[in-house]
This record gives sequence, C-alpha cells and structure tokens, in this order.
Amino acid sequence: MRASLRSHVDRDRGELAAAYEHVRSATERLCADLSPEVCTAQSMTEASPVKWHLAHTSWFFETFVLSASVRGYEPFHPEFSYLFNSYYNAIGERVARSERGLLTRPTLEEVMAYRRHVDERMRECIERSRPLDAAVVELGCHHEQQHQELILTDVKHLLSRNPLQPAFRARGCMQRPADVAPRARFIGYAEGLHEIGHAGGGFAFDNESPRHRVFVHAFELASRLATNGEILEFIADRGYERPELWLSDGWDAVQMHGWRAPLYWQPDGERWMQFTLAGVREVEPAEPVCHVSHYEADAFARWAGARLPREAEWEVAARELPVDGNFVESGELHPLADVRVTDDASAIDAPHAMFGDVWEWTCSAYDAYPGYRPAPGALGEYNGKFMVNQMVLRGGSCASPRAHLRASYRNFFHPHARWQFSGIRLARDL
Amino acid sequence: MRASLRSHVDRDRGELAAAYEHVRSATERLCADLSPEVCTAQSMTEASPVKWHLAHTSWFFETFVLSASVRGYEPFHPEFSYLFNSYYNAIGERVARSERGLLTRPTLEEVMAYRRHVDERMRECIERSRPLDAAVVELGCHHEQQHQELILTDVKHLLSRNPLQPAFRARGCMQRPADVAPRARFIGYAEGLHEIGHAGGGFAFDNESPRHRVFVHAFELASRLATNGEILEFIADRGYERPELWLSDGWDAVQMHGWRAPLYWQPDGERWMQFTLAGVREVEPAEPVCHVSHYEADAFARWAGARLPREAEWEVAARELPVDGNFVESGELHPLADVRVTDDASAIDAPHAMFGDVWEWTCSAYDAYPGYRPAPGALGEYNGKFMVNQMVLRGGSCASPRAHLRASYRNFFHPHARWQFSGIRLARDL
Amino acid sequence: MRASLRSHVDRDRGELAAAYEHVRSATERLCADLSPEVCTAQSMTEASPVKWHLAHTSWFFETFVLSASVRGYEPFHPEFSYLFNSYYNAIGERVARSERGLLTRPTLEEVMAYRRHVDERMRECIERSRPLDAAVVELGCHHEQQHQELILTDVKHLLSRNPLQPAFRARGCMQRPADVAPRARFIGYAEGLHEIGHAGGGFAFDNESPRHRVFVHAFELASRLATNGEILEFIADRGYERPELWLSDGWDAVQMHGWRAPLYWQPDGERWMQFTLAGVREVEPAEPVCHVSHYEADAFARWAGARLPREAEWEVAARELPVDGNFVESGELHPLADVRVTDDASAIDAPHAMFGDVWEWTCSAYDAYPGYRPAPGALGEYNGKFMVNQMVLRGGSCASPRAHLRASYRNFFHPHARWQFSGIRLARDL
Amino acid sequence: MRASLRSHVDRDRGELAAAYEHVRSATERLCADLSPEVCTAQSMTEASPVKWHLAHTSWFFETFVLSASVRGYEPFHPEFSYLFNSYYNAIGERVARSERGLLTRPTLEEVMAYRRHVDERMRECIERSRPLDAAVVELGCHHEQQHQELILTDVKHLLSRNPLQPAFRARGCMQRPADVAPRARFIGYAEGLHEIGHAGGGFAFDNESPRHRVFVHAFELASRLATNGEILEFIADRGYERPELWLSDGWDAVQMHGWRAPLYWQPDGERWMQFTLAGVREVEPAEPVCHVSHYEADAFARWAGARLPREAEWEVAARELPVDGNFVESGELHPLADVRVTDDASAIDAPHAMFGDVWEWTCSAYDAYPGYRPAPGALGEYNGKFMVNQMVLRGGSCASPRAHLRASYRNFFHPHARWQFSGIRLARDL
Repeated sequence: MRASLRSHVDRDRGELAAAYEHVRSATERLCADLSPEVCTAQSMTEASPVKWHLAHTSWFFETFVLSASVRGYEPFHPEFSYLFNSYYNAIGERVARSERGLLTRPTLEEVMAYRRHVDERMRECIERSRPLDAAVVELGCHHEQQHQELILTDVKHLLSRNPLQPAFRARGCMQRPADVAPRARFIGYAEGLHEIGHAGGGFAFDNESPRHRVFVHAFELASRLATNGEILEFIADRGYERPELWLSDGWDAVQMHGWRAPLYWQPDGERWMQFTLAGVREVEPAEPVCHVSHYEADAFARWAGARLPREAEWEVAARELPVDGNFVESGELHPLADVRVTDDASAIDAPHAMFGDVWEWTCSAYDAYPGYRPAPGALGEYNGKFMVNQMVLRGGSCASPRAHLRASYRNFFHPHARWQFSGIRLARDL
Repeated sequence: MRASLRSHVDRDRGELAAAYEHVRSATERLCADLSPEVCTAQSMTEASPVKWHLAHTSWFFETFVLSASVRGYEPFHPEFSYLFNSYYNAIGERVARSERGLLTRPTLEEVMAYRRHVDERMRECIERSRPLDAAVVELGCHHEQQHQELILTDVKHLLSRNPLQPAFRARGCMQRPADVAPRARFIGYAEGLHEIGHAGGGFAFDNESPRHRVFVHAFELASRLATNGEILEFIADRGYERPELWLSDGWDAVQMHGWRAPLYWQPDGERWMQFTLAGVREVEPAEPVCHVSHYEADAFARWAGARLPREAEWEVAARELPVDGNFVESGELHPLADVRVTDDASAIDAPHAMFGDVWEWTCSAYDAYPGYRPAPGALGEYNGKFMVNQMVLRGGSCASPRAHLRASYRNFFHPHARWQFSGIRLARDL
Repeated sequence: MRASLRSHVDRDRGELAAAYEHVRSATERLCADLSPEVCTAQSMTEASPVKWHLAHTSWFFETFVLSASVRGYEPFHPEFSYLFNSYYNAIGERVARSERGLLTRPTLEEVMAYRRHVDERMRECIERSRPLDAAVVELGCHHEQQHQELILTDVKHLLSRNPLQPAFRARGCMQRPADVAPRARFIGYAEGLHEIGHAGGGFAFDNESPRHRVFVHAFELASRLATNGEILEFIADRGYERPELWLSDGWDAVQMHGWRAPLYWQPDGERWMQFTLAGVREVEPAEPVCHVSHYEADAFARWAGARLPREAEWEVAARELPVDGNFVESGELHPLADVRVTDDASAIDAPHAMFGDVWEWTCSAYDAYPGYRPAPGALGEYNGKFMVNQMVLRGGSCASPRAHLRASYRNFFHPHARWQFSGIRLARDL
Repeated sequence: MRASLRSHVDRDRGELAAAYEHVRSATERLCADLSPEVCTAQSMTEASPVKWHLAHTSWFFETFVLSASVRGYEPFHPEFSYLFNSYYNAIGERVARSERGLLTRPTLEEVMAYRRHVDERMRECIERSRPLDAAVVELGCHHEQQHQELILTDVKHLLSRNPLQPAFRARGCMQRPADVAPRARFIGYAEGLHEIGHAGGGFAFDNESPRHRVFVHAFELASRLATNGEILEFIADRGYERPELWLSDGWDAVQMHGWRAPLYWQPDGERWMQFTLAGVREVEPAEPVCHVSHYEADAFARWAGARLPREAEWEVAARELPVDGNFVESGELHPLADVRVTDDASAIDAPHAMFGDVWEWTCSAYDAYPGYRPAPGALGEYNGKFMVNQMVLRGGSCASPRAHLRASYRNFFHPHARWQFSGIRLARDL
C-alpha cells in the first residue's frame, strides 16, 4: 500500500514519534502474556506465528524506513529480510508462508531484541533524519495495527486447535445475561449519485482512492447485525444442508469442509458451545454471529429473503456515523449484543454497530477504484495485487484498533475465510 | 437462468419450431464427423464429453419442457435425469462432474436416439401443447447454443492432450499470409451516467437484467484486440517471469502450472507452434492472442501500461456497433487478424472485432445487477449461483453462434481458465 | 521379465505359431462385444482402457520381436511406441499412465488394424526368421495372457462406475442355489527344508527363478477359501471399525477410503448386493469372498485367529496338486462356491481351489529370490523393478487363462489394491 | 512391543531403578540446551516435537506402569492421555500425528514438571510395588531410548528447515582430515541353515522372536559402509537420472521429490555441503554416506553391481562381533570414516562398523517371524501392526544409545524415509 499522497508529510515529528510509540507498545502489550511456545506455532497457512508478526512489522520499518533513509544503516541480521518479508516480491525471496512455524530461531527473546533495536533507530530517525518520509512511517504504523488484529485472529485459531482449548486471556468475552436482541428493522436510503472513497484529511490506504462517483440504487440496511439466534434458526431450518441457498462455490466448500455451523462452534448435547479468546462458553443468541465465511453470510442472507450490502451502499450509510463501537480497546475481544431498548423499533433511525464488533461481509468483489494507481516499487504490492477472488468487508471488529478505522476502509478476504471476526448485516433492494 | 419476462411468449409457433430445428441440427452438424471414442472421453473436470453435451441439452428440453408441460410424458430413460443433469440441485442427485468420462453407456448411438426421441416429442409439443411455455423453449435453444461453443472448446482441449494432436476438422484455422496487425490506437469515451443491461426486445438471460444506471468514468478502449505478436514481446521481455506484473493469485498459478505462453502454444526450436482445431501450425503474429487466462490478460495489460476494460465500459462502447464478426458460422474456428488498412490509424473511430474472434476478459467480477432476481425453481440455478470468484467476458468468439450474442451478453469463467477462446482488449483511464 | 533360459527355444515352429494364434484370438474374443466407448475410457490410474491393452500387447511383439529380428521392419505407426509403451524406461518416453483414457485416437478400428498388421508380420516371422528368438515370442504370449486378465478386471471396474451398472456379458456369474459352504478345516504340513521356484520344463517368468532352498516351519492351511458368509460375520462383528484388527497402514486405508465391505458390494436395505461382470446380484454367502485388499485379508485373518500363508508355504502345498479349477475358460467370470460333500470334513485331505477362483493374498512381500538376475535390456524391467511395497498373490483366478498358471507363479499387487479377483485362504502356525 | 518373556522379571529392584534413572536423565541431558521454541515445532508429519517426545515417554510409564500397577494412581493431567498417546488405538483417541506441533500448551516447563512427577512416582513404584511388572518398566526404558534417537533425527530435520541452519550443538560432527576410505573388499559367508532372532538373555523386543531356523545362501558382505565419495561417483555417473537403476516406486519418488543427492546435501558452487547437527560443513568423501532412502540405497547397490543384504545375512555376520562402534555416547552425532590401515585389504576379515555410525538398509521387508505373537492388549500394538510396506534396517547409528542395540535388533522404516541416520552396506551373491 502506498500511503495517501494526502497524508501528513509535514506533520509534527513529535506527533509522529508519539504515534509510533503508541502502536509499537500496543503490539507488545497484546503479546505480553504469551509463551515462546504459543508465539512460535502456526496452525494453518493463512495464519502466521505471533513471533513472525512481531518480527515482520519491525522488518517493515527496517526495510522501508531505516534501510531506505538512514545512510549506512546495517540490518540487524542479514537473513531477516528473507525470514520476515511477507509477500513483497520486489524485495526478494522469502520463506514459504506455510513454513513460518518452522522458524524456531530466532527465538522470541531475539525477536524482542530485534524490536528494541528497530525502535531505537526509528526514534533517532524520526527525530533527526533529513529528509524523512513521514508518510512511510505512518504507513508502517497502520500496517502494524493490521497485524495487531491478525495476532488476535491467528492466535485464536491456534489455541482452538489445542485439545486443552486454553484461553488467550481470562478476562474479556464475558457472557452477558441472556438479552434478546432487538427486532431488526430495515432503514431505507434513496438512490443517487454519490462519491465514495477517501476524502482526504488523515491517513488512508491506496485502495481507498481515488474518491469517485458511483450511482447507488435505492436500498435498505438492517438496523443491527445478524445474531447467533438467527443463525440457530438457519441451522434448525437445515440451512447448511440445502444447496439452493448457496452459491455454487459455497456449496462445494460446505461439502468439502463439512461445515455445519460457524467456526469455533461445537455441539455439546443439546446446546452449542463456542471457543472464544477467554475459553469455551455457551453460544449466546443475542450476540452478533461471528466467524462466518462470505459463503455462509450469503446463504444466510438468501434464506432471510435479503442480500449482503454492496460496499458503496455500506459506505454511504456509514460515513455520517461516528467511528464508535466495540473495538480492541474495550478488552472484550468478542462481539457484544445490541442492547438498545427495543420497545419502539421505529425510533431506531441509524444502523447500530456499523463500526466494531464484526467485519461485515459485502457482496462486492475487491477491485480497483476507477483511476486507481498503486505506488511504484515494493510498497505498490501492498494492496493492488490482491484485487481478484476476494470480497470486501467493512467496518472493523472487536479486534481492530479504533484509530485504524474509517468509513472508507476496505478490508478483503477470500470468500471461504472464517477465522477473522467476520459477520453479517443484511441489505435489501428498495 | 430465467428467460426474460420480456421474451416472445406469444411469438408464432412456427417461428419457434424453426428456431428449435435450426439449433438442434446445428449441434448435430458440428459433431457429425466425431468418432464414438472422441465423443466419450473427458480431458479435465471443467470440460465434458461431447456425448454428454449432446445428451444434456436434450435432457434440458425433456426436463423443463416435456416433463413440465406434456401430460403423462414418460422420460426416455429413468436414469438419464441422474446422468445428464449438469448442476441443477433442485432436480436431484447427479453424476460427479469429474466422472462424466466414465459414462461409456449410453453409447453415442443411444444418445442420438435420445435426441431423436426428444425432437419428435418437442415438435408435437411446440405444435400442440396448450399452454406452451415458449420462453422455456427459447431458453433451451440459447442453452444449446452455449453448449455448441463448449463442444468446440472441450473437444479442442481433448484432442490437444493426444500426442497425435489430431485435427477436429481439416478445413478452418487457415494460416493467412503474415500480415502485420495495424497499430492499435485508443478510442476515447466521455464520462457519464449510462444504462446498461438488457433493454428488452428479444431474448436475454436473467443475469443481463435489470437494466440499470451506472456511472462510467472517462476511458479509452484499444481499436483492436491484442495480438500474438504483442504477447511474443511480452514473453521476450520475460513477462511470465516477473512477479511484479501479476496479481498475487495469478503469480501462484504461473508457478503451479508452469505457464510460459498461452495454452496450446508449444516451442519448436526458435519458433512457437500452436494447436488449433485444424491441427498444429505456426503462431501467426498478426492474429489476436487466444486461450489466455484472466491472470495473463491482466499481467499483459499491466506490462503494456494499460488495464482490462470494465464490463460497463465495454457495453457502452459495443452497444452502438452491429453484432458482426468472425463467428462459428464462418467455419474458421480460429480468430482472424485485423486486416484493415493501417495507413491512417486516425481514421479508425470504432474498435474492431468487439464481437466474435475471442471473448474479451474484463476486470469486472461477475455479480448480480442491482435488483437482480433469479427465476424460482430449478431454472433459477442457471446463472445466479455462479456469482462469486468468476470474471466477466464479453463479445463472443469464433466458436459462438452469431444469433447467440448481443451487447448486453455476460459470459463468465474463473480467472485461471484458459481453454475458452478468450483474449484481450486493452483499456485505459482518461 | 526375461523368459526362462530353460524355455523351449528349440520347440517346433508350428507349435509356436499355434500358441501365438491361440492367445491372440482369445484376446479378441474377449473384447468382441465391447463398444468403442467402453474400450476407450479409463476409470482410474491403475486400470487401462481395453483399447490400450489391445494395442500394447501388439506393441510388445512389434518392439521385442519384429523390430528386433526382422531386417528393415517399419513400425506400423511412428508414434505408437510412445502411445503404447507401458513402463519400459529403456524404450523411451511414454504417455502418462493416468492419461491413457485420453487416447481417443487411434480409434478402436485402427487398433484392430494394428493387431492384424502385427499378426501378419508375426506369422511370417515365426515361419521364416533366421534366427528367431522363440523365447521372446513365448514371453509375449504369456504377457498377453496377463493382459487378458487385466482387460476383465479393468473393464469390471469401469462398468461399476457407471450408474447404469451395465453387464460386461449377460451369461456367467450365475447365482447358484444358496448352498452352505463346507466347514473349513486346517490341513497340516510338517517343517522341512524345501526347494521352491521354477523347476524347469515349460515357461516361467524370471521372478520364479532361481529355484532355491528355503526352510519352512510347520504350518496348516485352510481346506477352502474364506467365504462371503464369513466376511458378513466379520462385518457384523464390526470388523471394519476395530483398529486393533488392522495393520496400521490398513487402518489408514479404511479411514481414508471409507471401506465398509469388499469392493463392488453395495447395501440394499437389509441385504448386500454385489456388482459382477453379469451385472448386480445378491451376495451369496457360500461363495469365496473376492475383491478384498491385502489389508482386509490380513484383518480378517487376525479376527479369525489365523494369518495369511507365506508364499513358500502356499507353493509347498500347491505343487503336488493339478492345475485345475475355475479359470476364465469356464466362462463364469466369478468365483464358485466349494460344493464338496461336507458330511465328513476329515475326509478332505487337500486344500480346495488352490488354483482358480480368486488370487490368494500371502503375507510375503514381493522380493527377489536368492540369486535372482533380471534379463539385460528393456525386458529386464518386466518384473524386477516392482520388488518393493507389493505383496505376493498365488494361484490365479476365474479371470486367468488356465495355461498361464503354475505352482511357482508369483503375482503381486500393492496391499491396498482391490480391483483384482483377490481373496483369502487362512493359514496357521502349527 | 511386548517385552521378551525371557526378560529379567526377577532382577534386582535396585538395578531396575538405576536403569530407569540412567535412561531418564540421558533424555534430559540431550535436550538441556533446547529452547521452548525448538521443542514445540514439528517439521513434518513423520517427525514429532521434542516436547512431545519428552511427554510421550513419560505417558508410557504413567499408562503402562503407574495406572496399571499403582492402586488409586491419578494421572497428572486428565487430557494428557489424549495428547501424548502415539498410536495405541486400544488406549483411545489421540491427537492427529500431523498436529503435534500445535500443542503449544502444555509448555515445555509444564512437560518437565510432568516428567518430574512421573519420575517420583516411578521411584516409589519400583521400590515398593507388589507385584511390579519389571518387564514393562524395562520395556519403557528401551522405548525411551528409541525416542532419544528420534529426538535427534527429528530436531535435525527441524533445524535444517530453518534458513539460518542453526546447530543443535556446537561440538560433534567434526570434520576430519580428508582421509581416503580404505578400498572395500567383500567378505564371504558359506551357505547354511542358521538360527536367527533373539537367543534369550537380556532384553529384546517382541519382533525379534521367536528365534527360528532360516536357510541362508552363500553371500558376501562389504568390509565397510558405502562412502560419500562413492555416492559422488554415483551422482557424477548420473545415477539420479537413470531410471534403469531404480525400483519403479523409487524412480517415482526421485521424480516427485526432485532428489539429486542425499538428504541435507546442498550444492555450493562446485562442492557439496551438508547440514549436520553442528551446522553446515563440506561433504567429506571418506565418511559413510548417510540420510539416504531405501530407494537410493538400492539404486546405488545396483549401480555398483551389488545388492543390499538380507536381514538374516546381516545377522549371521554380525552376531559374532562385539556391539562396538560410534554411538550417541561418543558425542560425534555423525558417522565417522573408517580409518583402518588400508595397505593390506586382505588382512581385513570382518566387516567394519556393523554397529553404530548408520543404520544399514536391508532388502528385507519387515515382517513377522514364524511363530510371532504380539502381546495381548495395547502393548501388542508396539511392533506388529507396522509389518507391511516397511524395510528392515540393522545395526544402529551414531544417534543410538549403545545399550539399546544387539545383533538381533530390527529397526524398520518406509522405503522413502531419509531423515534417520540411514546408510548403505553392499552385499553380493556368492
């Protein structure tokens, strides 16, 4: 990803240094209680070891800031570029993604030393370098925030594969009294020619640009996220067994993987339990459903007589709302039920939880906005080369840092992916 | 697919009968010279045996017309619904797609008897049935035209896997004197709010509806298709070896399959040969490139400093042009070089070969138009359930029947597919 | 395989010509009713199309006799060596085994013309060539007999995959009145130093030589083959679900393939049906069990408190018996129940059906006899290079030509193979 | 494996306690320098994490001694039986072998606490239990010695997959001055009826029994192991590229895995380097070749005009020799060159290094000795169920504890396995 040209190249260095410190220390607080064992293992190709995330985010600053800007900078270790490059072909060869769990060395301790080394040199660099590409530093901070979320989703997947099903953290993911979720209503939006994409002012990734016009047909959006209770109805109505509800590729995935419920759900006699970052507990009907693939989201929507929102629709609805919600800072690490008073549904005139809780699958394939140009060089590989076979998700989750999000933010995953905190908001044509 | 509600339900029955006869006999002429051996084999999961196509198209009429409309109709064979259902889950179980080549029985002769049986009953039905769902008959005819093209692409793939590389047909695919293709120029189109999709009047598939507004940004389109000569330059410039030119999934496909040139190309000392439906002959630089995946089309476009067109752009440019070009009726079965006089490129004010020759990959993911509704029941599975992970192609090819095409027609394949007559037209932002 | 040096190099040419004619015409009679469709398809990598067998056996004579011995012999077609070589690396490249079903050309008719061409030249050659390597002609005849059996097993597998489950031949595989199989008894053999292997006199494959001494411990052998009725007891006792009965690799195969019964068995309500070369009919308890893997044979033996015989034990027991039994010449194409009078089991002093009915899995890995030397050149690849990971089977089946068998004959397949007519005879330590 | 009935059930308890302490502490010394990261990761399905070995060997004593013999014994952790069972189906479900690397918890520290807990209870048990099944304790000690060797081979494989190629231990694997290996000569053995298998007196696994007669044909055995220098000649003679040298399954493995040299060899310009437990160093021609599959051993032997020994031949030759050689106790952790004076080859009348250095592949498939009976219950799964598809290796390696070996010892691996310290000794028919 190329940092927006509209980024604060001239922002105050002190502010930049503070942002850097904030992001880096947040990452380390997240991992503070993790053992070397947990930080080393990799549970599937799509997920990475925590240790790798810790090193890769440092490698990013080392490669794109220190090596690029600091005269005579010597990399901390000559092989780390090979070990901790994620996918930047322009930077050179790298460890196969599926083999990151074999990186028993460097140890966690050595990786933490690497982080300290990079931090020290980055502090000097931010303070003193002439010139300093502040946009790349800012990009590196947002990059690290993405990895903070991935650390949580990847470690959740890893721990779930351990028969002991250990908790990541005892607190959080608290089960609330069994509230009933409010009835969802649909909120209407008129048709019109809108501008979407990053409007300038603050950081954005290159895939949010350029801002451009798009004609949006009249639509309506559900006032809240789809709930576990609704998915339980879908299951009870044999939703996972009826091919007519599914996209063809989705039905193939159901058959191949034997899906019968969202990821992390497990039957326990009559009830469903779910693995959370605080361990196993009962599925709570009022909570938003989480850890579903695009295929499941799409099939559920079809069953419900609705569809998933287009990304432009979502953005039009979201951009007037404050970026407010259940983010990683709440410490919940789990989506929360909508507990608004439900007596008068008609009083609800804005969709709830557009930000936070769960990423919302859209029916829009991830593509280039008209006029999109990736940055030259290796940073141009950040976003553009993934613009095929993936679907856009919007709004952030309970594992996203609040400062990382905005209405124009485009997340994207393959439609079969389930290990992110991904959920469902329904939409309909008007 | 649901036939358009705007279809000619009330058209004259004689006309419908003639259309039916025309389509059915065209299919049989196409296969007239094929041996039982060729008609039985299946070269890959995505392709089907000719015998299967011959039977499946008949099954379509039997299932959706005869069984639905003719009181007391007895299917020709009780198991054929199982054998020749393609993907209609609502109709019931079916033979796994990858095992169609194991259907040694019914024999080709029995399948032809099945066709005759269905034809006789269809003739009676079209003449006499009260009521007759003429829209479904028309749909069946267009369905069979799609399979005519697939018969050619599937049998081409099959024959290419035989070390003898036998011709499908001796005539056609003639090599022309080595014309140089005219220099391509780019033709500009202004931005604007356009309507795309089927405008009514004549048949269309459900995925072309509803007609709807879309804002199209200013763009330009190449005056002709990309040529073999240009791909040879791409190859010479190491295009297949430079990851920075490729989408990430595309680069994975290059590595996994060892792609080094379009499908059916084979090196012969210094030159490149290609397998055609008339056998192996030299690659002709002036001809349009053919049998490339979306990934290759996209990488070539990036290398050329351009991009692939969006489907709305393509439709806006194509809809004023006559549906004219090199279709299956020419008997060429191979794309033809653009031989317009090239002295004055500026005289060219419309793109050439928008219809016929090769399907043109767009950069648009195949999705539902705003307001799209699939038909109820099994016919609703025709198009809608494929709306994920596939890319739209436009314009038809040298293997398409002319009557099958129109400006709003949306074809779609997975981005790695290469065995269709698929090629490249470049576009650019203005 | 190298023909035994003890072979009849000097036998009368008329006799050799007669043997040749006999074998070649037997092959063609076997295939006389098969359609081009059936002869072309390949149902799995391990099996080959009938057309391929017909051509490959001719290629063997063309390559190892005509091209080697006839001055100026021109191969029938320059590409056939590539198409119809099975695995002789010394002869050159060949079509991948898994792609033999794509050889739609040459057609069946062309293959039969190839056979006629080879037959004519072979007749001349046998009559006139000086010198003539009669041992290789004889080897080619035995080679073709092996493929006669494979034609039956491969076409059985192919037809079984067709949902129509068509018969290969209406006659044969007759269901007998439901006789009860006689109680099996165990026949004892004293320990001793024995010679096993080919003793000279008549043809043998190289893997049966040299004859050599082996110490055989006292053992006993079941008086008859294990029956379907006994396997039904094994199934009822949850034999396919109890890992303690299985070899570790066998249990993996059970899990991976979902085995619950022998190949070609299918449940039909309360009863079991089986696919035979005459179509589907009920499983007959008194018949020998057939189409089991080595793993199933071994697990069944363990369940029965016994084991499989060693190949030396089998040979010691078999060599005094006449080569008599239910072979392909009976036309049954299915194993037959042992119908000896059972009142006095003690009167039975020799094992029944040691030859014919089903190949008997031994617990001996296929290996080289002490002093074994493969022939030089391509024919040396016949047997020796398969001497790892395969298990020996003895005795021939209802699909073997009688003249092909003898007590020293060693057949071999991978332990998971089930599509041969393979069954079980129990043994025990004394 | 069932401990031999001839085992010292009545041996002195003090001796048993000492043996137990010796083995357990040897395991821990082996792992003393390994980080939690190294102890957690798993590099392939066939290898296990060190942590798993440490726990599994303790689980063995807990399950088969403490739970079986100590009234009221409470397992250390209720889930450990599930986590650390290797393949004893009779004990119940277990973690899939390929997922042992996901056992991030228990941590290494917790596993060491588990070991201490088991050790304490075992000490009490050995001292006080009435009755005590001393044979199972002894079996557990030998079982743990097997895992000591596996710890070394598995951690070697793991470290080799790390691009940093870190050493397991700095000392050991020293490169010696480039001695030339002595010319090998062949030592002859006359034919005869021999007894092989465990003769009683001391511990043996059940697969070494019963001792039984076997007729051994005259043979000769190479006076030393095959060397790296000889494999370099094999490579130079295109040994890895000539199918006629290979077993058919071996050639498939060469193609599939791209083998071009023994495991852990890597080209470096003109020379070959190899990864050892002390890091990367040059390949030394005089050293015994190591880390070859059975397929490579067999192909090399064929190329050399020889063959691999049968296991009975090996045992006949070895049983008069002292169990003396380069074992794990030497600290070399790498095979050593034979440095006997070579002037008078004829003076060498016994094969060198029959014990230690490298396991010697035989051409004998691993099977049951005549009269073999596995133990009843779960311990019966130790050896018997692996008696298919594996080849016997003899003699122990530089990673084996000396006390673990004897002439009748049978090791076994699949023929494609290369990560053990496996090498080659040639044999010939006389």
